[in-house]
Amino acid sequence: MNRNYSATVHSLKPLRIGIDTHQEPVVYLRSESHVCRSEGLEALSRISLSVDGRTLIATLNVVHDHLLDEDTIGLSEAAWRVLQPAPGSRVRISHAPTVESMSAVRAKIYGHRLSEAQLHSIIRDVVAGRYSDVELSAFITACGTENLDNDEVAGLTRAMIDAGERLSWPGTAIYDKHCVGGLPGNRTTPLLVAICAANGMTIPKTSSRAITSPAGTADTMETLAPVNLSLDAMRAVVEREGGCVVWGGAVHLSPADDILIRVERALDIDSEGQMVASVLSKKAAAGSTHVVIDIPVGPTAKVRTRHDATHLSEIMHLTGRAVGMDVRSVITDGRQPVGRGIGPALEAHDILAILQGKPDAPADLADRASELAGALLELAGRAAAGEGRQLALTTLRNGKAWQKFQAICTAQGGMRTPPVAPLTHPVLSPRSGRVIDIDNRKLSRAAKLAGAPIAPSAGLTLEKHLDDSVKAGEPLFVLHAEAPGELEYTLEYLEANPHIFQIES
Amino acid sequence: MNRNYSATVHSLKPLRIGIDTHQEPVVYLRSESHVCRSEGLEALSRISLSVDGRTLIATLNVVHDHLLDEDTIGLSEAAWRVLQPAPGSRVRISHAPTVESMSAVRAKIYGHRLSEAQLHSIIRDVVAGRYSDVELSAFITACGTENLDNDEVAGLTRAMIDAGERLSWPGTAIYDKHCVGGLPGNRTTPLLVAICAANGMTIPKTSSRAITSPAGTADTMETLAPVNLSLDAMRAVVEREGGCVVWGGAVHLSPADDILIRVERALDIDSEGQMVASVLSKKAAAGSTHVVIDIPVGPTAKVRTRHDATHLSEIMHLTGRAVGMDVRSVITDGRQPVGRGIGPALEAHDILAILQGKPDAPADLADRASELAGALLELAGRAAAGEGRQLALTTLRNGKAWQKFQAICTAQGGMRTPPVAPLTHPVLSPRSGRVIDIDNRKLSRAAKLAGAPIAPSAGLTLEKHLDDSVKAGEPLFVLHAEAPGELEYTLEYLEANPHIFQIES
Repeated sequence: MNRNYSATVHSLKPLRIGIDTHQEPVVYLRSESHVCRSEGLEALSRISLSVDGRTLIATLNVVHDHLLDEDTIGLSEAAWRVLQPAPGSRVRISHAPTVESMSAVRAKIYGHRLSEAQLHSIIRDVVAGRYSDVELSAFITACGTENLDNDEVAGLTRAMIDAGERLSWPGTAIYDKHCVGGLPGNRTTPLLVAICAANGMTIPKTSSRAITSPAGTADTMETLAPVNLSLDAMRAVVEREGGCVVWGGAVHLSPADDILIRVERALDIDSEGQMVASVLSKKAAAGSTHVVIDIPVGPTAKVRTRHDATHLSEIMHLTGRAVGMDVRSVITDGRQPVGRGIGPALEAHDILAILQGKPDAPADLADRASELAGALLELAGRAAAGEGRQLALTTLRNGKAWQKFQAICTAQGGMRTPPVAPLTHPVLSPRSGRVIDIDNRKLSRAAKLAGAPIAPSAGLTLEKHLDDSVKAGEPLFVLHAEAPGELEYTLEYLEANPHIFQIES
Repeated sequence: MNRNYSATVHSLKPLRIGIDTHQEPVVYLRSESHVCRSEGLEALSRISLSVDGRTLIATLNVVHDHLLDEDTIGLSEAAWRVLQPAPGSRVRISHAPTVESMSAVRAKIYGHRLSEAQLHSIIRDVVAGRYSDVELSAFITACGTENLDNDEVAGLTRAMIDAGERLSWPGTAIYDKHCVGGLPGNRTTPLLVAICAANGMTIPKTSSRAITSPAGTADTMETLAPVNLSLDAMRAVVEREGGCVVWGGAVHLSPADDILIRVERALDIDSEGQMVASVLSKKAAAGSTHVVIDIPVGPTAKVRTRHDATHLSEIMHLTGRAVGMDVRSVITDGRQPVGRGIGPALEAHDILAILQGKPDAPADLADRASELAGALLELAGRAAAGEGRQLALTTLRNGKAWQKFQAICTAQGGMRTPPVAPLTHPVLSPRSGRVIDIDNRKLSRAAKLAGAPIAPSAGLTLEKHLDDSVKAGEPLFVLHAEAPGELEYTLEYLEANPHIFQIES
């Protein structure tokens, strides 16, 4: 056994094959090629590729037809983006090494705890692209709700922070805010950042795209200004304006999060431990020192009871302390959507109406944003205890927030006008009475089926809220869509789920 | 909302695109095509296809290049096999409906029990191909060890039975046997079936392919005779010879099992509840009434302690009773491999040597097969209590088992000669002494890296067993491979794991 050797490495001509496999890189080899036969490669084998100093692990699809010749390896768009082979370069390929950290995932499935070291090696492998989609799904599922203890959540958070870049800001307190999702339309962040920055605070806000909801803050903000900013560009915006609203993934803060979120979205799951690690790793990586968490509670919000909210609040606080942040939660009313629009551009229209002081602006959204901004203003000593909310409302009313918001959008690359959907369809009340319940989850689902967040102007606008009176034939909400197929699909869903609004006569 | 409509359906020309995506069907559409734009389809969207009365749900890959024209949909080999479009047919496509049973999987991830009805709807959707690989992975992980209670295991077993065909046999007792894997080379089934059938018992044996091991009984038997038999063909073999050894999946007994096993194999996990459901659903579907389970116990076998074996034995018994079978377990010695070969053809060579009474035939494998066959002979009243093993050995020695085995192989489609690997490499002992421990798991891993079970002649042959004396430089085992890359890869693994055999000087 004492001999030197290296596993066989083959060298092949790369061909950009023009197939988009989303984020999992796929490569294509001819089944009867020398490399497939001699290496025993078959469909779904994991193989290592390297070219010009860049490396990648990809899943193999075997090609039987004449798409490829013997000497060529086809690369999906995801594989091409990583390897970027120079013209004339050849790609070296070999069997992918065993992903050792998957044995820790298997141990977790069998009920063992994950150590800090195991969590770090899992997240390192995830970020290095060594996990297939099927393996990512197993990791996410194994860490499902209640399956991670507090130490594991803290370990996962640290692992996710360490796997990406981490910002530092000159000496001052850095403020941040996060809303635990599940409440459609609760788009307070752009307002709150404008209010805080207008009051001289530093609030370098990074946001996520939607996981299971019809819009994330990054999706909404993207209809108002560019959000895919580099680290340097983000720093320049914050140095100039005190605040920003950018997509976290674009600045490589907690890159593991973006990989995990893609599979969480496919599964439509979002567990507590992973949610805390996801949120706080982004905050810590952004250099935040003081964070306010908005936890809306309601029967169809993500958090359903005050008891669950208190539990989550505690894990947030403990995990924050474990990674060096002061994390405080505000438990809010999550019984119905906030504002009027649900969907990226529709929410942006609400935000603009508030900032511009339009008479039809949704007052509930302005109130919610002021409550949270007020808590941050008080934390920062900009307002005395109990007076933060009033200062926030004043900052909205006197136009300073609108001025600051425009300046931030300009600094991020230029203000945009949110799009308007070409198709709308009112959904009418079948009877007269009073609105006594709204199912947030089904409403979100309808907005997603209509195309949100991928179709930015799609979603829905609420015409009625809780306790409103409605007459038979009056619209309850209006669907907005970019594609007829999506509108039809949403109507099919609404026909099967007619009781999203409960009307009591 | 009271209007009739159907979701938009598009009709496209199918093109067999010659890409093998294993079992997950993938279809390819041009990104700028009308159907992608109007339906809002993107990479990884799930879409429904139908043609000539056949339907399929597939994952979309978007094509940017000129592989496809606007009016064409590309089909992977897996998609083509299901749809088989006639020349000139057009494929109708639309958004795939929501897979409702995934909400039960999500509830399981969040810690809820799965009801019998939920398990049935999950398994129905799995068999109908409605689950993506990522969703299958989540289901398998959520049902990981200790996560299913006894009722859930029984419910899963019934759901898996109901999702496939179920055989019935005329009036008599139907015997069957299963070994809980993890012990390399423990290939008793072909011997036991020959012994029992030679003694007039009805033993219609369906077997699995390997999940995480270097060979399943179906893989080994396939090197000796065809195993992909139709139901009618299997029935004819059993009616003629009393027994058979066929692949369960080919006769559509518990088809869910074969779909789940593919992802379990990718994850390298095999949990207790799923194992029981997998084993017993196949037995019940095969019409078995009396089943003996071989549970090898050893520090590196699948079951590590007598306590675990007793627990498994109990779940097997209870689940068997819940689905109407008498299931009894035999706990056996699992401290080291049984026989000499590990890998499909190498194990087949051992079996032939025993049946043909060759002097170098592995006695331990003959003994183990006789012990289990003896238990069945006693259950069937063919031997008095305590005399079954002797009758089994006699049936081997007098050539009746060999005669019966050849007749079964002929009935299954013709006896084959197991292949011999072109490449071998002896692994030598670094020192002299006595073998005091063998790591079954690492030995299995080495056999798998050498190519087993996909390369049928690959694997390894043991030259030494527990308690044997060995001199420095003598071979401990010999690697067999079909491809140089796989041999190199195995040697790389052995270099990193030099202590598979513990030698005490």
